[in-house]
Amino acid sequence: HAAFQDVSHMVVFGFGFFLTFLRRYGFSSTGFNLLIVVLGVQCSMLIEGLLVLLLRKESDSVLERAAVSVTAVVISAGAVLGKANPVQLILMTVVEIIVFYISKWINNTFLQVPDSVSMMHVHLFGAYFGLALSSRFSEPTPRSEKNASTPKSDLLSVLGTLFLWVFWPSFNSILAEDKNKAIYDTYLALAVSAVTAFMLSVLTTKDGKFRMTHIRSAVLAGGVTVGSAAYSIEYPWIAMILGLLASVTAILGSYCLQRCFSPVLKIHDTSGVHFTFGLPAVLGALAQVVLLVIRNWTNLTRVDYLVLFHVGAYCQTISVAVVTGFITGLILNFRLFKTTPVSKYFDDQFYWEVSF
Amino acid sequence: HAAFQDVSHMVVFGFGFFLTFLRRYGFSSTGFNLLIVVLGVQCSMLIEGLLVLLLRKESDSVLERAAVSVTAVVISAGAVLGKANPVQLILMTVVEIIVFYISKWINNTFLQVPDSVSMMHVHLFGAYFGLALSSRFSEPTPRSEKNASTPKSDLLSVLGTLFLWVFWPSFNSILAEDKNKAIYDTYLALAVSAVTAFMLSVLTTKDGKFRMTHIRSAVLAGGVTVGSAAYSIEYPWIAMILGLLASVTAILGSYCLQRCFSPVLKIHDTSGVHFTFGLPAVLGALAQVVLLVIRNWTNLTRVDYLVLFHVGAYCQTISVAVVTGFITGLILNFRLFKTTPVSKYFDDQFYWEVSF
Amino acid sequence: HAAFQDVSHMVVFGFGFFLTFLRRYGFSSTGFNLLIVVLGVQCSMLIEGLLVLLLRKESDSVLERAAVSVTAVVISAGAVLGKANPVQLILMTVVEIIVFYISKWINNTFLQVPDSVSMMHVHLFGAYFGLALSSRFSEPTPRSEKNASTPKSDLLSVLGTLFLWVFWPSFNSILAEDKNKAIYDTYLALAVSAVTAFMLSVLTTKDGKFRMTHIRSAVLAGGVTVGSAAYSIEYPWIAMILGLLASVTAILGSYCLQRCFSPVLKIHDTSGVHFTFGLPAVLGALAQVVLLVIRNWTNLTRVDYLVLFHVGAYCQTISVAVVTGFITGLILNFRLFKTTPVSKYFDDQFYWEVSF
Repeated sequence: HAAFQDVSHMVVFGFGFFLTFLRRYGFSSTGFNLLIVVLGVQCSMLIEGLLVLLLRKESDSVLERAAVSVTAVVISAGAVLGKANPVQLILMTVVEIIVFYISKWINNTFLQVPDSVSMMHVHLFGAYFGLALSSRFSEPTPRSEKNASTPKSDLLSVLGTLFLWVFWPSFNSILAEDKNKAIYDTYLALAVSAVTAFMLSVLTTKDGKFRMTHIRSAVLAGGVTVGSAAYSIEYPWIAMILGLLASVTAILGSYCLQRCFSPVLKIHDTSGVHFTFGLPAVLGALAQVVLLVIRNWTNLTRVDYLVLFHVGAYCQTISVAVVTGFITGLILNFRLFKTTPVSKYFDDQFYWEVSF
Repeated sequence: HAAFQDVSHMVVFGFGFFLTFLRRYGFSSTGFNLLIVVLGVQCSMLIEGLLVLLLRKESDSVLERAAVSVTAVVISAGAVLGKANPVQLILMTVVEIIVFYISKWINNTFLQVPDSVSMMHVHLFGAYFGLALSSRFSEPTPRSEKNASTPKSDLLSVLGTLFLWVFWPSFNSILAEDKNKAIYDTYLALAVSAVTAFMLSVLTTKDGKFRMTHIRSAVLAGGVTVGSAAYSIEYPWIAMILGLLASVTAILGSYCLQRCFSPVLKIHDTSGVHFTFGLPAVLGALAQVVLLVIRNWTNLTRVDYLVLFHVGAYCQTISVAVVTGFITGLILNFRLFKTTPVSKYFDDQFYWEVSF
Repeated sequence: HAAFQDVSHMVVFGFGFFLTFLRRYGFSSTGFNLLIVVLGVQCSMLIEGLLVLLLRKESDSVLERAAVSVTAVVISAGAVLGKANPVQLILMTVVEIIVFYISKWINNTFLQVPDSVSMMHVHLFGAYFGLALSSRFSEPTPRSEKNASTPKSDLLSVLGTLFLWVFWPSFNSILAEDKNKAIYDTYLALAVSAVTAFMLSVLTTKDGKFRMTHIRSAVLAGGVTVGSAAYSIEYPWIAMILGLLASVTAILGSYCLQRCFSPVLKIHDTSGVHFTFGLPAVLGALAQVVLLVIRNWTNLTRVDYLVLFHVGAYCQTISVAVVTGFITGLILNFRLFKTTPVSKYFDDQFYWEVSF
């Protein structure tokens, strides 16, 4: 059970503190993260139980699978961090877990993607669900003093990031068949990602300084990418190259998205889940397909078949995530749910008794 | 040895930071916690060694048992946090560990409670020992500025709480026979506790906000309760119901105790160990007895016998804890030990070189 | 892989936060620590790969060995914390890892010290390499406001220290043959160290208060000492005595070094690696030799031989560390590397975009 403990630690503690970078939103970041994790795990276990009853599907390592699938919810919550209230987060958790299981079931049944692989679509699903959801929330006022970090809050966020970094190999290996290979590959990818993150951060900022948001996203990117492509990686150097590309994707993505994509589509993504989890997961999906093609290029019919089904599965996951995320966003903004006014965004005091 | 590492982490790090909620007492909270943990572990090992010599009792997993029994001391220290000086804490540690082993020995020998069960009386013992001890310390001045938390210190305390939360399943399973069941049950109970804690906190505060003290105590309550009742829990849903009840007990307990019980008895309980560990442990004891009755109700003689011995064991533990705690409190307040003046309560600067 | 995870956690997270005690250097302490760890691990793996190719040496647990050897770099970085810029740190990492492997190879080949023992020279090597390196950097202005800690930054450093404390048994056991014994011994030594640290800190400070620097160094000293002497320790009480002596060495060492040694030799050692890692490692080396003599005193030829080779190995490690550290220090201070001006020492803002 050491691996489950690690993933639990990563989801509850790592993500909780990863999201504490906002100046005045520490209680909510960690507290609501715990809330949605425990809700998500329980939802997930109920669904697994239902599947056992309805489909007579055998089911082991239920808790492990629940802990992995809840990551999707945690990632989505990052996109609406500080904007959604607890009731909205709870509803989001329930809907997202159900939809994720449906999407996974479609992948397993119609596209013959094995369960352990389609489980690793969590990052992809979580990021795009969160982005679509976020598009339905009002944007914060541009130069909000609260939507910023202090050195102290950033340092707590680094604390969470290092936890995620350390436990990511356990996360990628928990459902893998060859656990040692998964740990080894993920560790190498993360190591290369971290080095690349520092190099690129210096090169892309104006005065050649490091930017903490870059580091925070890019050191994790390798883990996300390798998580998606894990079972096709034959040699460690492939994992290292993927780590490099993932880090590049995350930092360039952060640059492009903030300049072009987000202002046009009016999507405000508080903790940058798009370039931290979304783009590296897409890269992982591409890598997976390319590696499959390379490995099976002698057998053309099989390649066609594999590529078709894998690409299909990824497209299915993304489109289901975007569509249901958008719908959930619409529903969550009904008056019924007492949406948080824009002036109270990113503020612990709106939800917590805070004493100074 | 992964489980021992987890419990060691939980006791040293989790409890250390769980207690850092006071504004000016961070060094002492974490530092003195480490001090009493290492002292307690050494005392505990000496006693185990003595028992091997004197009683020719075989003894394995000495270190694990030492780490569990030291939890009693850590919990008691929470009740006098900021009020007892290091010398008092050291004496308390030595006395408490010895008395806990005696109480456990009575349970094993005369009441035929198996060792792994009576070991789980730690929370009960620790909480009531600490409360009785605390009644002998002068109360702090009512509106002391130092006896309060800041958002920063509360966030560090959340950090510790999340550690405790994550490692509690390891703690409950370390001495259990069926480790997987214990981990599974504890995790579920903790998950239900966490959800309940958030719900109840909103319902019981004046303006419908979350209160951090509630969350901090109530998310852990399920773990304490299941720890006491673990070996009688047959189905996961029982653990979940216990988690729910534990959380309710902790939050209502915190309300009632602060209004009625503590002002009348003049017991000041700095970190709320009574409702965080004491009441949930009592609930666990009750649950244990009820579950035993339900399981054995066909065999009435056996039920009588079991109930008698279990209730006896719990009463024995609590009464020994209260009596020796009270006596220890009297002794610790001799002039010899240079008791901390009330004006220097909750102040790092009284014990540490602090530079600003 | 639980042990590797623990060591990775300790090196990335524990050391990262162990070094955050400086008031304005939190980002760099944790960030650059991650950078040099991942670089060091990759270097180390490349070297191991090269050795497999060149010497046809079989090689398992590559990742574990890489994680251990990178500790040397992390310790050296502590000595120049806040004074070396990232480029200098990167170069230092590469040089130090290569030199450490060469020194280890000399120990293995010419002095017949087994690999798992000479691997544990990391603390010795890291500390003296760092000190020699540090002697080539300009000293900071005496009463620099930035070269100090605040209670908050000290508390984060305690957080890291507790992580190191908890994971040290895993570190010492990762390459040991009898893992249980190594864990047990290290835990006991650390426990005794912690108690001694508190006692001695009170006795050596002017007004009988605890000093955080003392506690931070001395609680870890036992782990370092036992790490060096592990495979000769036959009884747990030997480990406990070593823990006691290590803690005394660290605290008295800190006193003497700051008064006499450092001002004379003009070595400024930011995070006190000399008395935290250097002196306890020397003590461990002495203990190792003494224990070998005691164990083999019946066989005088064998004793001579063993003592000669062990003392030789330690001297070789230290002298290689000092000489190469000095040379590296000279090279790193070429203008090419844009050395940090003394006025910008210990300042995050020189390397990071910091928003207040």
